[in-house]
Amino acid sequence: MHRLQRALDALVERVDTPAPIVLIDVVQRNIDRMQGFAAQHDLQVRPHVKTHKCVEIGRLQVEAGAVGITAGNVGEAEVFAAAGFDDIFLAYPVWPAGTKGERIRRLAGTTRLRVGVDNVAAVEALADAMGDEPGRLEIVVEIDCGARRSGTPPEGAGDLALAARKRGLVPVGVYTYPGHGSSAPDARERAARDQEVALATAVRSFAGVGVTAEVVSAGSTPTVAFSTSDLITEIRPGEYVFCDMDNTRLGACDEDQIALFVATTVVSDRVPGQVILDIGTKALGRDGDPQRGYGRIAGRTSVLSKLNEYHGFLAVPPEEPRPGVGTVLAMVPNHVCPIVNNFEELIVTDSQGTMPQRWSVAARGRLS
Amino acid sequence: MHRLQRALDALVERVDTPAPIVLIDVVQRNIDRMQGFAAQHDLQVRPHVKTHKCVEIGRLQVEAGAVGITAGNVGEAEVFAAAGFDDIFLAYPVWPAGTKGERIRRLAGTTRLRVGVDNVAAVEALADAMGDEPGRLEIVVEIDCGARRSGTPPEGAGDLALAARKRGLVPVGVYTYPGHGSSAPDARERAARDQEVALATAVRSFAGVGVTAEVVSAGSTPTVAFSTSDLITEIRPGEYVFCDMDNTRLGACDEDQIALFVATTVVSDRVPGQVILDIGTKALGRDGDPQRGYGRIAGRTSVLSKLNEYHGFLAVPPEEPRPGVGTVLAMVPNHVCPIVNNFEELIVTDSQGTMPQRWSVAARGRLS
Repeated sequence: MHRLQRALDALVERVDTPAPIVLIDVVQRNIDRMQGFAAQHDLQVRPHVKTHKCVEIGRLQVEAGAVGITAGNVGEAEVFAAAGFDDIFLAYPVWPAGTKGERIRRLAGTTRLRVGVDNVAAVEALADAMGDEPGRLEIVVEIDCGARRSGTPPEGAGDLALAARKRGLVPVGVYTYPGHGSSAPDARERAARDQEVALATAVRSFAGVGVTAEVVSAGSTPTVAFSTSDLITEIRPGEYVFCDMDNTRLGACDEDQIALFVATTVVSDRVPGQVILDIGTKALGRDGDPQRGYGRIAGRTSVLSKLNEYHGFLAVPPEEPRPGVGTVLAMVPNHVCPIVNNFEELIVTDSQGTMPQRWSVAARGRLS
Repeated sequence: MHRLQRALDALVERVDTPAPIVLIDVVQRNIDRMQGFAAQHDLQVRPHVKTHKCVEIGRLQVEAGAVGITAGNVGEAEVFAAAGFDDIFLAYPVWPAGTKGERIRRLAGTTRLRVGVDNVAAVEALADAMGDEPGRLEIVVEIDCGARRSGTPPEGAGDLALAARKRGLVPVGVYTYPGHGSSAPDARERAARDQEVALATAVRSFAGVGVTAEVVSAGSTPTVAFSTSDLITEIRPGEYVFCDMDNTRLGACDEDQIALFVATTVVSDRVPGQVILDIGTKALGRDGDPQRGYGRIAGRTSVLSKLNEYHGFLAVPPEEPRPGVGTVLAMVPNHVCPIVNNFEELIVTDSQGTMPQRWSVAARGRLS
């Protein structure tokens, strides 16, 4: 982790903190590694752009072989479509309220578009929204494999495929998110097994109503290592591109794969045993808990023990020297995805801290 | 709280969720009430713009009598200065790293600018940054009154005033933030008492070195009701403008003062006993805990029990009807400040849901 601080030290005078710093050589290695893994197992990669929301990074993923991208909402899909991405899967049980129906229809006119559904009412509403062009919208049925979030029970997948076909929409397959594999290291493999069983049931359910599930789409950075069966056609990892402390703790990435950190300055040292950093919930979110803290400082054992909006509390154990006021530190987040959404731009450099550029977080604030 | 849902129902077809909705008649009443309270106790109001980050709302506060504004970082101050606000207090122990020194100097050339300091090194760094114009920067010494965050012990305030004066900066007073009053209803009054004792000590410390503390500045929405002594010259509440569930629980506001909610759509109902809303940590942050949840739905007893990035889990008790897929609900956050930072714009309407306008969250993403 000292490498992060070294990169930061090289460019610190050009950075106003807090600021997210991306090491693009590490990003490229992460992208190439995932693409190599997928090629080895005959999987297509459709990375989730929620992690970076950045057109330039999406392009690196596609150049390395990604078959398209995954988006989390209509706004993200619009930003990437406008930038020329032409194969987008909105992996969310989207409901076309407000102007979203119109937006989805427009989007389907400019890019190959797939959306998730997990209930018949959404199928009907999407078909209504598509007007006389339902055939432009591909439907992927979301199934629940154990995360107990969204998704139909797998044996109901075929019914939704039929409902879609009846309205002229194009059912192309099934997807799921094994979110229950993000909780503990030993949960990853189990969740991946659940995922496979559920996807197999859903594919049979499609076949039972005479629809072929061409797409069998699986999550996620923590479970991807176990998602290698012949059944699965594509994987949708997001976090692998930057990695973070949570994935490191799960064993889903190594510390040397961490490619994003937040530069933060010590602004106050008046309370013994702690210093205050200029990084709070508005920069970091609040992914953490008292046990794992709210982020780790590269090269130190201490973690952020508490956050206010603009203040991060770094507890410094007595055996560790306290960093002085004005010191700029590299903070590695627990969960990287919320960070990117808080900033207008990423400062993109390499492990030597050379030639920093600013890349826009183009889909930032696109939440609907 | 039914009034929030009624306002939402009137404009729901024009809203893509998730979206923050502001009831401007309630905002105006909140502003007028605070201004009336301050006038009664001979206090100046310098509202903290971190809560809204919106130029239009800042203008309503100044038109109602606010003496200036409080900002949380240089970027916020820049946005409001560019919009014509000419009296800004950056109530933060700012450190002029990167280009911030230059930015502060530029800002002090266009607006009356005060900044917080709590250590001598920052005084020196700020004086260096101001070059040959140190007299343009006013210094307010931050003291710690018990929150154990930033701030010098009150008896050290005079030393910092002297250090500032020695470098040609202009020490004008002291400020503190009684953050330990936001934790429990009975903590509010105690924290306000701590605040007053600490401010009195700091004012004496200024006098001891021959500097008059003209500004004696106190927080905060939860403690403002108890901050009425003759010693205090100004208050810096932020959250009062919108209110939220945390302030309601503390007794610092009433439910009928809540002026901001987030419109959110039910997108999935496949798991018994819950529905999924299209609102997760990227829209809400994660201010909450399993006990108080992560936000309350207007007109319901149930709270958001869990958040993922794009999914909110609403547990629905058996005795309550489950809202159907496609239903748009009004969600009241625990802590309002992080919400605003996540969106590009506020949808501004009134309690009848009429004439929605879009106001830019102009200082959104300005974190440094």
